[in-house]
Amino acid sequence: MKNNELIEEAEEYLFTHIPITVHLGVRVLSYDGRSIEIHAPLDPNINHRETAFGGSLSAVAILSGWALIHLALLEEDVDARLVIQKSSMDFIKAVEGAFMAECSLPGEEEWQRFLTMLNRKSVARLNLKSTVTCNGEMVCTHDGTYVAMIKEPER
Amino acid sequence: MKNNELIEEAEEYLFTHIPITVHLGVRVLSYDGRSIEIHAPLDPNINHRETAFGGSLSAVAILSGWALIHLALLEEDVDARLVIQKSSMDFIKAVEGAFMAECSLPGEEEWQRFLTMLNRKSVARLNLKSTVTCNGEMVCTHDGTYVAMIKEPER
Repeated sequence: MKNNELIEEAEEYLFTHIPITVHLGVRVLSYDGRSIEIHAPLDPNINHRETAFGGSLSAVAILSGWALIHLALLEEDVDARLVIQKSSMDFIKAVEGAFMAECSLPGEEEWQRFLTMLNRKSVARLNLKSTVTCNGEMVCTHDGTYVAMIKEPER
Repeated sequence: MKNNELIEEAEEYLFTHIPITVHLGVRVLSYDGRSIEIHAPLDPNINHRETAFGGSLSAVAILSGWALIHLALLEEDVDARLVIQKSSMDFIKAVEGAFMAECSLPGEEEWQRFLTMLNRKSVARLNLKSTVTCNGEMVCTHDGTYVAMIKEPER
């Protein structure tokens, strides 16, 4: 599948299944199966001082890691439930404009170890860092621990 | 001011100044100057598996600490800029219904120390824990570090 189609599918998926993403105003700027960039405008995420609300920044950072693993698992034909177990965010400076959360999968070896564990134990854990930038400057860093579980058959 | 009026003012403030709170569907259930309870319905915050999206949970937890300090400072007639510096969230179990974030100010001594520092240095830091419950059960815990800064006079 071409990258543009992947991106459209990724956005469509988020907007349909996680409706708050529509109100956060996010767009998937890039997605290539290994990394993702999610853009959000300032206006819908503004706080009382004309900078981005910390809760919106956190939500978009969490989304970048979640969406990346979720989409990468779909490409591996793995139908897993994916949840975040731990989120840690450092807010480095005020965010005075549109912002972008970027996240990349770990190296191939670690990714394969994650898939093997998921296949063997039906549950596996992955730590991913995301960074949030605004006008090219790093404004937040996020560490997320995500847990994938192979879903049980429908009863 | 009576508690009901405080609550209405608090909600009005959030909806006006942090517009994403409208889309998160939050309501201030209680606020008495020392603690706050913020309720959010599941529907606008749902993820692909009919549980609450981690980003929404994080945003509402951050909001509970931020709103509490912000409102308490307003009652002290302190006009400060308040930002979150660090957010750490543990997601303990899946959230399958409406949820509520609760946060309380620290004891009077620590609160007064915070106010004194803010007055003296124009900047002060406060750590607050929030808990998120669903159907009376604790589902997430949040540690937030919030920084208040006395704003400079308008030029």
